[in-house]
Amino acid sequence: MSDTDQLVSGVLEGNRRALARLITRIESTRRDHRAEASDAITRLLPETGKSIRIGISGVPGVGKSSFIETFGLHVVEQGHKVAVLAVDPSSPKHGGSILGDKTRMENLARNPGAYVRPSPSSGSIGGVARRTRETILAVEAAGFDVVLVETVGVGQSEYAVADLVDMFVLLVAPGGGDDLQGIKKGIVEMADLLVVTKNDGDLQKAASRAFQDYTSALRMLRGGDDVWRPEVLRCSAHTRDGIPEVWARMEAFREAVQAAGRIDERRAEQAASWMWDEVTSTLLAEVRRKGGVGDKMEAAVRSGKRTPTDAAREILKQFDLGDL
Amino acid sequence: MSDTDQLVSGVLEGNRRALARLITRIESTRRDHRAEASDAITRLLPETGKSIRIGISGVPGVGKSSFIETFGLHVVEQGHKVAVLAVDPSSPKHGGSILGDKTRMENLARNPGAYVRPSPSSGSIGGVARRTRETILAVEAAGFDVVLVETVGVGQSEYAVADLVDMFVLLVAPGGGDDLQGIKKGIVEMADLLVVTKNDGDLQKAASRAFQDYTSALRMLRGGDDVWRPEVLRCSAHTRDGIPEVWARMEAFREAVQAAGRIDERRAEQAASWMWDEVTSTLLAEVRRKGGVGDKMEAAVRSGKRTPTDAAREILKQFDLGDL
Repeated sequence: MSDTDQLVSGVLEGNRRALARLITRIESTRRDHRAEASDAITRLLPETGKSIRIGISGVPGVGKSSFIETFGLHVVEQGHKVAVLAVDPSSPKHGGSILGDKTRMENLARNPGAYVRPSPSSGSIGGVARRTRETILAVEAAGFDVVLVETVGVGQSEYAVADLVDMFVLLVAPGGGDDLQGIKKGIVEMADLLVVTKNDGDLQKAASRAFQDYTSALRMLRGGDDVWRPEVLRCSAHTRDGIPEVWARMEAFREAVQAAGRIDERRAEQAASWMWDEVTSTLLAEVRRKGGVGDKMEAAVRSGKRTPTDAAREILKQFDLGDL
Repeated sequence: MSDTDQLVSGVLEGNRRALARLITRIESTRRDHRAEASDAITRLLPETGKSIRIGISGVPGVGKSSFIETFGLHVVEQGHKVAVLAVDPSSPKHGGSILGDKTRMENLARNPGAYVRPSPSSGSIGGVARRTRETILAVEAAGFDVVLVETVGVGQSEYAVADLVDMFVLLVAPGGGDDLQGIKKGIVEMADLLVVTKNDGDLQKAASRAFQDYTSALRMLRGGDDVWRPEVLRCSAHTRDGIPEVWARMEAFREAVQAAGRIDERRAEQAASWMWDEVTSTLLAEVRRKGGVGDKMEAAVRSGKRTPTDAAREILKQFDLGDL
């Protein structure tokens, strides 16, 4: 049995060591590791796709880890297997907001029904997202049927995550002034569900105000359609109040969009755009590798010395594309 | 003197015929025409960039043509030369909402201080945007110092236009229910200025309500920073009320962002991303041209028969990139 054979059968048996090894290969910068991972994923493909993939976002301080821990344990109690992944390319630079996942979600990480994987330690958003796509397939093949993809709300990463999942959930904290935090980046518009956290103790009043504010914001945005209309929920990771309702609404979402054929549709779209992203990014990387003509041209364009079209043509000369 | 020499010197003299000929070359689907245009633009480059580029968007029915005509005439009266371009890839299919520009903006089009160019008649948003970028440079070289790029609010085209201009202006109509039309697509967030149109006759009350709604929406969105904070204005293309104020605020915007060095910065970014777009789109077009492997792979990925990574590698085999 080859190494890859062992890896594949280990993952299919739900062996955590094999799963961890495969994910390490996926995240590796070594070309041979990545090729091995890619082979393994191809062979695992028939056993993937059976989970619901849920993106969870929210600005730092919203209580994301506490929510995911309590929520994850609840879902495990319902008989599911829960994997928690993270897309957070900035973690090593910015003090590791998600880096410490494993210790922060101690109870969930220790639970045999759950698998918590910290964010890959470096790379661009695009790179991290690409690897997370493969990691989703890996945990699915290992039998996890609820995949949570967490991201910290720092701009582009939410869009990258939305492109990986079936459902996008935005956590918001009570308080924070009369402006709606999060609305800023159009993130609210992407959300299939909004969850107000920390609905406990002396924050309950503020949580109920936030609930009302977001409910009217959603009404104003008029998102959704007959199949699904985004809604706002409240919960407390501390008292567990509202946590079962969050899961119930996620199940309702899954049922509604699945009945409308949208999950398959969305995943087919995502896979196709993933493929073209890979093609494009490889070609662009190649352009940059080839003697720095790309850099030289970019500088000329930025300083207004060449038109973009002209510079692009110069770059393309390096590929054997015939007459442009 | 070669044809291109004549074209270049004609445009530099502000000859309208030469300008029209150059734009026709830019919009042509013939490769030799485009190459000629590209050459001409390269030579005109030192005389470009001196205008303020303003994107103007708004859903059908908002009164865009009337606004642009009245506004354009006002700006011409202030001693400026105004060019009006359009990004509207859907015009031929959808009944030509912008196609009829020239007749709709009769007074402006006839004015010697203005140049109204209808939207290129076909192509994808990306293609139309690419050609509009070159057309902006062409009209600048011909001496137009205010360039208005109009687009109908139908989704992606606003983003394409925002990527071409220094300032993005959103027109909104009074009324339309208690939801804020336009908020939907995050377009409001891109706007540096919101203008409520039709502030006249029996619509004045509704216009003032829209003014208040959008003002509080902007406050909630908390866009902008110390350099510029988006604001809402009211005007009437019919009575010309408020039109001078719109221009005054645009000038204030230009001054503020120019002092902060942002116009150059933004244009350098736009030019660099334009260049890479050209590289990418040419390479992708080439991929698709080469025997349909791209299509075959896309179908395999969509149906879940191949992983995107694997399919991408298959496609990339067609380029001589060495071992991937």
